[in-house]
Amino acid sequence: MNSRNRFLAAVECRELDRPPVWFMRQAGRYLPEYRALKEKYSFTEMAQTPELAVEVTMQPLQRFPLDAAIVFSDILVIPEALGQPYYFKEEGGIGFRDRIEGSTDVARLDGSDVPGRLDYVADALRILRKELGEGRALLGFGGSPWTLATYMVEGGSPGNFERIKAMVHESAATFNDLMEKLTTATIDYFNMQVDAGVDAIQIFDSWGSAAQGNDYEQLSLQWIRRIIDGLNGRVPVILFAKGMAHHLDALSSTGAKVLSMDWTVDLSRAGRELPPDMAVQGNLDPVILNTLPEIAKKETRRIIESLSGRPGHIFNLGHGILPQARIECVEAMVAEVVG
Amino acid sequence: MNSRNRFLAAVECRELDRPPVWFMRQAGRYLPEYRALKEKYSFTEMAQTPELAVEVTMQPLQRFPLDAAIVFSDILVIPEALGQPYYFKEEGGIGFRDRIEGSTDVARLDGSDVPGRLDYVADALRILRKELGEGRALLGFGGSPWTLATYMVEGGSPGNFERIKAMVHESAATFNDLMEKLTTATIDYFNMQVDAGVDAIQIFDSWGSAAQGNDYEQLSLQWIRRIIDGLNGRVPVILFAKGMAHHLDALSSTGAKVLSMDWTVDLSRAGRELPPDMAVQGNLDPVILNTLPEIAKKETRRIIESLSGRPGHIFNLGHGILPQARIECVEAMVAEVVG
Repeated sequence: MNSRNRFLAAVECRELDRPPVWFMRQAGRYLPEYRALKEKYSFTEMAQTPELAVEVTMQPLQRFPLDAAIVFSDILVIPEALGQPYYFKEEGGIGFRDRIEGSTDVARLDGSDVPGRLDYVADALRILRKELGEGRALLGFGGSPWTLATYMVEGGSPGNFERIKAMVHESAATFNDLMEKLTTATIDYFNMQVDAGVDAIQIFDSWGSAAQGNDYEQLSLQWIRRIIDGLNGRVPVILFAKGMAHHLDALSSTGAKVLSMDWTVDLSRAGRELPPDMAVQGNLDPVILNTLPEIAKKETRRIIESLSGRPGHIFNLGHGILPQARIECVEAMVAEVVG
Repeated sequence: MNSRNRFLAAVECRELDRPPVWFMRQAGRYLPEYRALKEKYSFTEMAQTPELAVEVTMQPLQRFPLDAAIVFSDILVIPEALGQPYYFKEEGGIGFRDRIEGSTDVARLDGSDVPGRLDYVADALRILRKELGEGRALLGFGGSPWTLATYMVEGGSPGNFERIKAMVHESAATFNDLMEKLTTATIDYFNMQVDAGVDAIQIFDSWGSAAQGNDYEQLSLQWIRRIIDGLNGRVPVILFAKGMAHHLDALSSTGAKVLSMDWTVDLSRAGRELPPDMAVQGNLDPVILNTLPEIAKKETRRIIESLSGRPGHIFNLGHGILPQARIECVEAMVAEVVG
């Protein structure tokens, strides 16, 4: 069984001898070969030049026997394609030259040709599909409209979510228009990714925990549901909703085939509570990869065993790997999964 | 029915015409009278001078018809009493001159006279008990051992929790010794608070979401359980475990009488899932108090109604009030509860 078939079988909750494995930010700063390339090119240059994006995407697959590649990009290409470019702040975090303050700014966002403006992602995906062949899975991704709107309205990495919440409560129509535009743009973008050959798409909902109580449905999940509907089942969707495991019922009703759990979740419990045809992805604490190989091995085993007997597990971290992660720990983790 | 009786009746899950109300950080920077005092005295001076601590504690009760006062202090007085003083960084957050790196540092922590070193808290509480009389409830508080250990080992406000997790996995005995010392110190401290007249104690477990899966029980809840046992039922305990609503089963088995929920939790669901003799505290999103009074009023009503028919609700915010909160919004919130 090749990696791609293994990945898709896990998505379908079929029984497997071992889970497939990939991990969030697997192409990233913990890799010396990534840092070497990063000295020559900016993040934007790497993401927007298909050959470089492909090179970075493939780096972790050349080191570790991973079952899936995820295209090197950023969720904020959508605001950029709509006319609101972002940048990385010197001190860390995201900034925007202009933030979305009201209805005029929302009206100015131009969603007329999102796939055209993001064709460099499609180019990278097409090359990747060829390089990977049919043997390994290729993943696309994007942010949830709520998460994107938060960055755009806060004008960068959010603190207390004051501006986006003021918009939600004081200017509901403006908020709604913004969410409509983001949802449409994301549907176009994801369909472009499918056309370019991805096997699955992961939606990152990073800021759901800003929502009060079950406002989460209205603020975030309803738009995710529309995006998944807009894909018409062409590829399965993996939903990563950080900090939202107390909303499992709602999360399991979006049409996503896989729920990616952060490290705080007891997977055995999630496995019991979720519908049996919903797969679970996760969820090793990424900080474990900063410790020692034998600890990485032990904790990886514990995660796998917590779901034993429950088909439908894609091994992953509970959040993106940290730049300080040790290669030996990553090797130990992957080896423990792959056996 | 006076405020104190109302508060204690809510803790006991008795039926009431309206919930009692207080809120986290009610004595704080959003109040002009607090900021005025803060220009003359440092936080430490205010916390360590009983007359000033009493003045600050009483400020919100003079403005709003609140049912409870909570003594003005900080969870980090425990590390300080053990010999590891903290300070507030210029750029925000907490710092320590020395962090706990290993067993020698833990051995050096001196828990021989925690109540003696924190007698200024007892002094403030005794004055407050007199000022409040029997009419209003008086609350004490402290941090969970896990939360305190995190600050002490990280050397301040935690980022990725790398150091504390390295200790947990690589030096389990040292971690255990540290937790033992913090647990004993906290039991002594809480019993001192009860002797000085508090009606209830709130435990803040701010960093439970650092724990992987159900490690939360081992890393944090077992120590909280021991502290609650160590109080021998002298006063009820309120547990605030931020971001941990997906561990409701575990949270309801610590001996705490009240669970304080962050704003992301649907209270009606928490009310249904928790044992009927466990009260619920919360959980208005504090950012709502930065918007408009009519929004504060509407959202307050929504929270109250979400628990209607389920006795045992203490109205509160879902986290501490922000410095930018508007007094008019706080007034609207409290008026909506009190009627």
